Amino acid sequence: MPVRTLKKVLALARSDQEERGGSRSGGSAPTLNDIRRAATRIAPYAFRTPILTCSEVNRMCSAEIHFKCENFQKVGAFKVRGAANAVFSLSETEAERGVATHSSGNHAAALAFAARQRRIPAHIVMPDNAPQAKKDNVARYGARITFCEPTLQAREETLARIVARTGAVVAHPYDDYRVIAGQGTCALELLQDVPDLDIVMAPVGGGGLLAGTAIAVSELSPETRVIAAEPANADDAARSFQAGHIIPSDNPQTVADGLLTSLGGRNFPIIMNRVFNILTVPEDAIIDAMRLIWERMKIVIEPSAAVPLAALRLHRDEILGQRIGIILSGGNVDLNRLPWMD
Amino acid sequence: MPVRTLKKVLALARSDQEERGGSRSGGSAPTLNDIRRAATRIAPYAFRTPILTCSEVNRMCSAEIHFKCENFQKVGAFKVRGAANAVFSLSETEAERGVATHSSGNHAAALAFAARQRRIPAHIVMPDNAPQAKKDNVARYGARITFCEPTLQAREETLARIVARTGAVVAHPYDDYRVIAGQGTCALELLQDVPDLDIVMAPVGGGGLLAGTAIAVSELSPETRVIAAEPANADDAARSFQAGHIIPSDNPQTVADGLLTSLGGRNFPIIMNRVFNILTVPEDAIIDAMRLIWERMKIVIEPSAAVPLAALRLHRDEILGQRIGIILSGGNVDLNRLPWMD
Repeated sequence: MPVRTLKKVLALARSDQEERGGSRSGGSAPTLNDIRRAATRIAPYAFRTPILTCSEVNRMCSAEIHFKCENFQKVGAFKVRGAANAVFSLSETEAERGVATHSSGNHAAALAFAARQRRIPAHIVMPDNAPQAKKDNVARYGARITFCEPTLQAREETLARIVARTGAVVAHPYDDYRVIAGQGTCALELLQDVPDLDIVMAPVGGGGLLAGTAIAVSELSPETRVIAAEPANADDAARSFQAGHIIPSDNPQTVADGLLTSLGGRNFPIIMNRVFNILTVPEDAIIDAMRLIWERMKIVIEPSAAVPLAALRLHRDEILGQRIGIILSGGNVDLNRLPWMD
Repeated sequence: MPVRTLKKVLALARSDQEERGGSRSGGSAPTLNDIRRAATRIAPYAFRTPILTCSEVNRMCSAEIHFKCENFQKVGAFKVRGAANAVFSLSETEAERGVATHSSGNHAAALAFAARQRRIPAHIVMPDNAPQAKKDNVARYGARITFCEPTLQAREETLARIVARTGAVVAHPYDDYRVIAGQGTCALELLQDVPDLDIVMAPVGGGGLLAGTAIAVSELSPETRVIAAEPANADDAARSFQAGHIIPSDNPQTVADGLLTSLGGRNFPIIMNRVFNILTVPEDAIIDAMRLIWERMKIVIEPSAAVPLAALRLHRDEILGQRIGIILSGGNVDLNRLPWMD
């Protein structure tokens, strides 16, 4: 974990200019107030999830870890926060045309769920290699699903065709300020329930959860470091963070199927300004951490949710005795095919 | 679910004479006060476990179900309640010789854990076909383990040899009043947190949890019916309950490996007097209910813990709209071998 304090200070000194340059998808980068408003807006549709601790995991890591259990969230993942904020931010005129997105699964289910709550159509583009549990999750909420090849290009082209035909409003899974503000409500709750954390950790895929977390934590608790974790097999965020510009990944393969996407243009400046570091972990460490949480904590999490604990265990010597919040991002996993059985 | 109200009234009218005829293992059948004292005694060693609800499970069952999560308990099962009560009820002189038991696993781990808390030896006899996760669980707490054939006779003979050699005090997994009082603390907490339940359900193997639950519920909330659930493949409790005398099972085979044992002599009269009914369920219904809880509630439970929900789903039409507490008895499962994969 390189010391990045100076870099962080310099980045913050640049003010929020870069963050606030956006034009569509909610206008400008969310503030803490936007996250607070999102929390009020989504309260009827998303759970305030519990925070669990486990003495054996604490002992193994020599730290005090507070797990924010978004695996218990509606539709089984934090994604409902961003999706509900996007759907319920729309004007009546916008909403009646419906919403549309492409997603590897959890955002799709979340958007379908939120759209059903508002009684508007949801058009979902899914890669055909998404886990069956995630496909079922989307279908359950009555979305109109279109499958495509598992590439970013195919997903975006398919989505563009649907939008041209229906006039639906796109709620991007992560590169959308309303979605980022919604995801930030998770860290808001975490810090309300467990103040004075030394570190907050979240997994990073497209960066929606990480950007929202980074805004909430850096505003509410400036001394708390935000550290992201990412599969080494899909390390575009870590490489982009080091390089200072977005380096997309090309068809990455990882057991953490929620973290395959590359950083979005709206997420990246927020992450550059407000995140302390991005750690990468090998596949076997992800699987080990996932199994540890299942065995010791008796909760079901998906591989993506295990990535921060995996990173923390690899950096155990650097976090001794610290108070750490970890966002367990989701629990949608195919129970017929667990990664330690392959 | 036959109407048993008259039978229950008659049984209660017999007073508690049968229940209170015991001589060893704690003297006489526990009262509500014994359960309250147990709750105080074990408080430093056992969690007050959370109670979860799941809107989708409620919708599927057309009822309001409150799950008492003993899968989150220390050592992963309710058994630590009875074991800790037994261990910390001993005099100093008794305790220094250690404790001993035979158990299919969860009681063994619980007794080993409680003995370690009191810094006394634990001698554990285990059937050699116990799941690996349960063997590991016992070994982790430093118990002295002796394996034997998976028959009641082999278990009892092996235990008798160990007791003769060491002078250890036997803490039977269920046929022990101190253990029964300890297990009763779970329903005590459930009723404190969720009063006015129509039904409380627990699985039944040897009957320790069921007897403790029945005492707590019938004393605290006489209008609440206690209903037990048992695998049809190990239905000694249901048959004994109908016959009015204990009919042991002979080497039963069920996925619910925590429910293989037959009712104990101390448990049976309590159950006859205070339990409304015992329902049996086929193996596939147990596996379906277990998977439903994993998928929808994102928690890890063992097959035995799923038996009450399985029974409830089979009797859905009889419980419409009722408020039901279900004790999820434990979460120790071999993650390499899940029952729906066989």
